[in-house]
Order: sequence, then C-alpha cells, then structure tokens
Amino acid sequence: MAQLNPMELAIGVDIGGTNTKYGIVNHRGEILEQGSLRTDDHETPEGFVEALHGALVPIMEQQHEYKIKGVGIGAPNGNFYTGTIEYAPNLRWKGVVPLAKMVSEKFWVPCVLTNDANAAAVGEMMYGAARGMRDFIMITLGTGVGSGIVANGQLIYGHDGFAGELGHTIIRPGGRPHWSTSLVGSLEAYCSATGIVLTAKELLEQTNDESLMRRYKPEEITSKVVYDCAVQGDALAKETYRFTGQILGESLANFIMFSSPEAIILFGGVIKAGELIMQPTKEHMEKNLLPIFQNKIKLVFSELREADAAILGASALVWELK
Amino acid sequence: MAQLNPMELAIGVDIGGTNTKYGIVNHRGEILEQGSLRTDDHETPEGFVEALHGALVPIMEQQHEYKIKGVGIGAPNGNFYTGTIEYAPNLRWKGVVPLAKMVSEKFWVPCVLTNDANAAAVGEMMYGAARGMRDFIMITLGTGVGSGIVANGQLIYGHDGFAGELGHTIIRPGGRPHWSTSLVGSLEAYCSATGIVLTAKELLEQTNDESLMRRYKPEEITSKVVYDCAVQGDALAKETYRFTGQILGESLANFIMFSSPEAIILFGGVIKAGELIMQPTKEHMEKNLLPIFQNKIKLVFSELREADAAILGASALVWELK
Repeated sequence: MAQLNPMELAIGVDIGGTNTKYGIVNHRGEILEQGSLRTDDHETPEGFVEALHGALVPIMEQQHEYKIKGVGIGAPNGNFYTGTIEYAPNLRWKGVVPLAKMVSEKFWVPCVLTNDANAAAVGEMMYGAARGMRDFIMITLGTGVGSGIVANGQLIYGHDGFAGELGHTIIRPGGRPHWSTSLVGSLEAYCSATGIVLTAKELLEQTNDESLMRRYKPEEITSKVVYDCAVQGDALAKETYRFTGQILGESLANFIMFSSPEAIILFGGVIKAGELIMQPTKEHMEKNLLPIFQNKIKLVFSELREADAAILGASALVWELK
Repeated sequence: MAQLNPMELAIGVDIGGTNTKYGIVNHRGEILEQGSLRTDDHETPEGFVEALHGALVPIMEQQHEYKIKGVGIGAPNGNFYTGTIEYAPNLRWKGVVPLAKMVSEKFWVPCVLTNDANAAAVGEMMYGAARGMRDFIMITLGTGVGSGIVANGQLIYGHDGFAGELGHTIIRPGGRPHWSTSLVGSLEAYCSATGIVLTAKELLEQTNDESLMRRYKPEEITSKVVYDCAVQGDALAKETYRFTGQILGESLANFIMFSSPEAIILFGGVIKAGELIMQPTKEHMEKNLLPIFQNKIKLVFSELREADAAILGASALVWELK
C-alpha cells in the first residue's frame, strides 16, 4: 500500500493533446492549487518542461512548509517502465520523449509517468469508486476509449509497459474501420464520442425516420447534439446510445472473462448520458457472460469529478513511489 | 519465487471428466512415479478421494526418504481461493465440492487447487516455454479452449478465483452458438477440437468442392480426420485450419492489447497441426494489433509433453506454497 505522509505533497500533471492540467495534492487527495497550460504551444518537450516548471514554481513556493515528494504524469502513450512518451499521435513531440527524466532533472524530485488511463485507474483506486478493491477495470469513454486494469492490487503494465489498450480490441470483426489506427471493428470505433457520432450519422442515413438530429447538418452533429436529442426523447438518438451500450457491454463481458474484476468503473464524457448508456451496457454485458460471472460484477460510474480526476490520478502515482 | 527443496516432493493431480492422472514430482520437475484412475467411476467426491489416496499411498511409501510437501490439483472449474470445484459441467459431482480440504484431511499435507488451464500455465512458467517470464498467456486448445494468464509474475485469479476464461470470450458476435454454454460466437465455439469439426462440416455443406473428407460420413468426421486430410493436402481441410487460425489470431490480438504479454504459449491437441494452425494464427494476430505491439510478442508452442504437462503443472502449484 502507498505511503501517505501528511507533511508531503504530490504534483499531478495530466498531459492532453491541447491542454495540460496540473495540481498540487495532499495526502487526503485534496487539490490545494491547480492550473493549466497549452500543450500544443510547445514545439519541443524541453520548452514544455520549462513552461511547466515556470507555472509550478510559484505554487510550490506557497507550500514551503511541505516537502514535494514527486511529480506524477499521465500522458498519451506514456510508458511506466521507461518514463517515456512513445510516438503519441496527438502530441507535437515525435518519437520517444524521455519526459520523466527531463521533469525529474528540472524539478529535482522523482518523476513517475504512465498513460492517462492508467493514471485515472490509480486515482480511482486511491480516492474514488475503487477504494479498497484489488481487482477492477477502469474504462475511460471520451474522445477515445482508454483503460486501466488492476489485478492482485497492481496495475497491469505488461512486459513492455503498454498493457491495457482495451479501446483497440476488436469487437466487430469486419466492422467499422477506425479513422486513425485503421484497425477494423475496434471498441473505440464505436464507443468513443467520435464513434457515437458516426453511429448517429449511419442511423440517419439508413432510415427515413423523423429525428431531431435531422435539424442539423451532418458536420454539425456532435456527441453533445446526440445527447441533447436523446434526452428530448428522440428515437434515433436513443437508438444510438442503445447500440453503443450493446457494443460496450459485449466488450465488457470479454474483459470480465479475462480478469474477473470486482467492478468495472466507467469514466469520461460519454457517461454523462447516464442510464441511456448504462442500461444497454449492463444488459449486453450480463447476456454475454458465463453464468459463473453473471450478476456479480459491479458496473459503476466514476466517483471523481472529471476535472479533478486526471490530476488526482497522476498525483496518486507519486504516493506509490517507494 | 517458489521454494524448491531437494528433499521435498510434490504430488500433482490432474482431474479430467473421464480420467484422473497423478504423479509424484521432484524439485527438478521430474515425474518419479505416475498413474491414473477413472474419475467417472466415483459417484461422490468422498469415494474419489478414497480411491486417489489408495492409489498414491504405495507410491508415497516408496519415496519414504523424502518429505511430501503437498498435493496440487488441476480441475475443471477449480477455484484457487476457496479450494473448491464449483458446478463443473463435465464431472459427476454437482454443486460446490470442497476438494482441497477433503484431500488435505485425507493426506495430512497441504492441498492447493486451481483450474486445469491455470495449473498448466504454472507448469509452463516453472518447467516449460515460459521459464523466467513475468507476463505471458497460456492457451490450451483441446476439447475446449482454456487459458491461464500471468502478469507481474503472478497468476491472474480475479476477485473471485475465476479469471482467465478466455475460451468463452466472444470473437464473432452473432456467430456460432456454443453447444453447451449457449454463448454466441465464442472462441471455444471455433477453436476447440469440436469447433474445428463444426467448421469442416460447414465448409463441406457450403461447397461442392472435392474433398478427402467426403469419404467420411458426417458423424465420422473428427478433428483427427480433418488433420489427416489436411496433411495430405486437402484444400477444404486446410481451409478449416486457416479459418480456425484466423479466429484464434484475432482473439490473441485482443488478449495482447489487454495484458501485453511477452509470449503466448499454445498447448493441447489442436497444436499437433503445427504450421497449418500457427501460420494463419500469427498472420491474423499481427494484423489486428496496434503498431506498438506488432512483431514483439512471441507466439510459441508449449515445450512440455502433453502427457506430463498436466501433472507437472498441478505439482508446480505445491512449490508456490509458503
């Protein structure tokens, strides 16, 4: 179990393609100060680390009675073992970036790095819906579909640090091609925000049914439009969520038969749809499970505020440091 | 790591629906003595334990200069946490059977039990192709499809002891119904010996192509017949393996994106087909992986003799006892 010292603080950094959020967190999981900077303003990782340091120094100096234990970073394609970001398609920095080493040398404290979904899982285990659990799977449903897997109380990193890419597992062989990975029929192709929009557009093309969504031009249909129409009772928008939930539920059943978790925790923008997505997900998850798994696995939404979760998760990595 | 004491021996027991194999194994993984008894002769687990004890006592007495450290059992639906066999469809003993406790009380030594595929994975890690690996997946392709998953050097049991049912994951939603689980499109429905026979029969029905398999009545076509025809160059029999390998490869890609193992080890009767199954499996595995996983994961056949592996795997559980 992590060592939590009340006289220590952890810095959590969540790197996204556009923005980077950072915060300084105490042992109770309270964010004392937070802020953000643009990621994509910085052509080089060196410039980014410089800017991050500049932003954090004043905050760190305010907390001078505490010791900064370290910096935890969640980043796309972040590798826990090597502390590097490797070929992240959404970042301007190409190739393999030794970010943990760079941050550690700049801040003079240890730095630990993993991918954003793994960081979220650690946050959930320490502060959220997975407190006390030794076996759970966290699925983040946002622009993409990410995942963090905990088994035997440990994050599963795999032999190379890249385990837990559940968004790229194939659930519809021969199905929808992914716009960026070119894998065919992957979970992310259906259950990300982008996937939901594609499903809505397909349904609009396949039928002549009336739909509130027809008031929008195809390029105006976003996942928010689908959601707004669904809560107004629009049948096609609701069908979009039903189908999304079916695909997600089938995938979750497969994941359960892999690691038999106590719970699956859903997180991210897509879960704002609440029961619209939860009900079909649960139905199709149960339907595709062996009887020994049925009605045993908790399917719950994250308890962390989305705005805080990324920083908390990244900072939680620091408490795991020996 | 397991404690291996040269003055200790482990008993390994592999319980199958029809036969139970047992052996007495030293710290080098050598089976000193082995034998078998009928499982299905015994209407009650009590009678079975009595018979097992009767068979093993003479062997144990021959090894009187050694200490018996314990009994390891691999059994269908065996639960590591509880030491019970739970609702095993292939056994005559119904409900929940506290077999580890019964064996321990009869033999006066500790008894550890898990499912047969997990036992095989432990055997492979200790004596076989996975020596020294901390992250690998073992897939047993026999009458059914079983699996054992090792991550961070530990077997993944899940919160309830039932993790690793990869044969029941769905790879063809809406596809072939499983003859016993009633799940639709599961890996086992295609890649078990039974699944291979079904594929061959489907291909024979769908075409009028000549095939050596047409010399057999449908009920005479076994997986051995398919194999024999394939090695003679029969196109439909070879297509049966190609299709089987495709399904298996797609499934393996999904498993890799879950736990990013160093290797996948294939075991069981089906792998006798060698390259007929390996080549398409590898092709479709690589094709369905994200680039970060491609050409990195070893796909290999087990190094253990099938006749020995079950006993070795079960006995290996004993060395893990504290």
